[in-house]
Amino acid sequence: MQAWAASSTTVTTHQTQPAYRRVRRHPERASYCVEDAYSILDEALVAHVSFTMDARPFIVPMGFGRDGNRLLLHGARGSRIYRQLAKGIPATVAVTLLDGLVLARSTFHHSMNYRSVVVFGQCEPITDIEDKDKALELLVEHIVPGRSQDARRPTRQELEATGLLAMPIEDFSIKRRSGPPVDDPADLDFPCWAGVLPTHLALGQPQPDSSGSPPPECPDYVERYRR
Amino acid sequence: MQAWAASSTTVTTHQTQPAYRRVRRHPERASYCVEDAYSILDEALVAHVSFTMDARPFIVPMGFGRDGNRLLLHGARGSRIYRQLAKGIPATVAVTLLDGLVLARSTFHHSMNYRSVVVFGQCEPITDIEDKDKALELLVEHIVPGRSQDARRPTRQELEATGLLAMPIEDFSIKRRSGPPVDDPADLDFPCWAGVLPTHLALGQPQPDSSGSPPPECPDYVERYRR
Repeated sequence: MQAWAASSTTVTTHQTQPAYRRVRRHPERASYCVEDAYSILDEALVAHVSFTMDARPFIVPMGFGRDGNRLLLHGARGSRIYRQLAKGIPATVAVTLLDGLVLARSTFHHSMNYRSVVVFGQCEPITDIEDKDKALELLVEHIVPGRSQDARRPTRQELEATGLLAMPIEDFSIKRRSGPPVDDPADLDFPCWAGVLPTHLALGQPQPDSSGSPPPECPDYVERYRR
Repeated sequence: MQAWAASSTTVTTHQTQPAYRRVRRHPERASYCVEDAYSILDEALVAHVSFTMDARPFIVPMGFGRDGNRLLLHGARGSRIYRQLAKGIPATVAVTLLDGLVLARSTFHHSMNYRSVVVFGQCEPITDIEDKDKALELLVEHIVPGRSQDARRPTRQELEATGLLAMPIEDFSIKRRSGPPVDDPADLDFPCWAGVLPTHLALGQPQPDSSGSPPPECPDYVERYRR
């Protein structure tokens, strides 16, 4: 681990960030605070994982979870992506939450409100069967809190087929924007509507599966799911 | 452009895909049809753009638009990211829409419903001032259809400061999952709720900006915005 990595208790400042992860555009929108990173990660459902293969950048959307200061990523153990990442090649994970569309008076100042975290590092495969069981539980709990106590637990064979990777949440940067549009003073009287159109992830009505025995009543953690 | 690139009229089959973009896990979830790609791109608001810099994979969330078979990406012209991508280095763009959480009876078969497209290629900078004006209009229209007619148009100076990149939508793959959970037959009587919890992007109440003249009435394209 690099000596300059943010520890879980220290908010490192902009100036001390290594060049590759320093946010250069709008540095006032940057954060390097690990609690901010956890809060974005805990709200999001999809991560985009990037790595280089045959000199070509790849991106894969993946479900994920968090175990303290480790990101947990999940894939089939036989898959090409799992095998690449499990080698410990450089990997970068981005998680983005969209919070709103920012409609300025000028086309130029249109923007989006968002929170994003980019984590740099390498993945390490989780191989111990009990560690995998725990990691899979955390992954399911990340996506649907409460679910792991209801669903059938994984068998040893299923755990063996599951690829689980851990990546430290230590080398990261956060960028975010919030608030109203920022127009040039000369545009403040321009006669068009300006403001923010907030966006959020919404849940529809749960759709019970009809393929087996009629499922029991929909549990609270599904019925009242919020993100 | 590679000879095997999908043309805008041909649906190429799984078998003819070059190795790097062939979907290997769940090939039944793959598509290489350009109309499917357009439909995912046109619904999404955020793209994740990946490239390699100093042997490290980078990802940046970006707003984007579409001009026929070209992705349009947007950044400040002086930014590190714009300058890297404008060189024409290999770049990969991923766009993902989350459609639902799939709760199977077994932990192992939990999944997500989603539509994702990954576009491989290189970016080309848009430099002509009229082309930039048009591209910026398409970008704004992608995010908020109807907006470009209301907002103050960009000045020449603003257009010069704007970095716009185009990337052909020709070398891509699509992966998606829809429908109910798929459990092992032996689990179909397991006594827990199973089904899909649909997700979608929702819009909140428009928040008018209070910094200038009181804005005129909220236009229909904001009030009735749906994605």
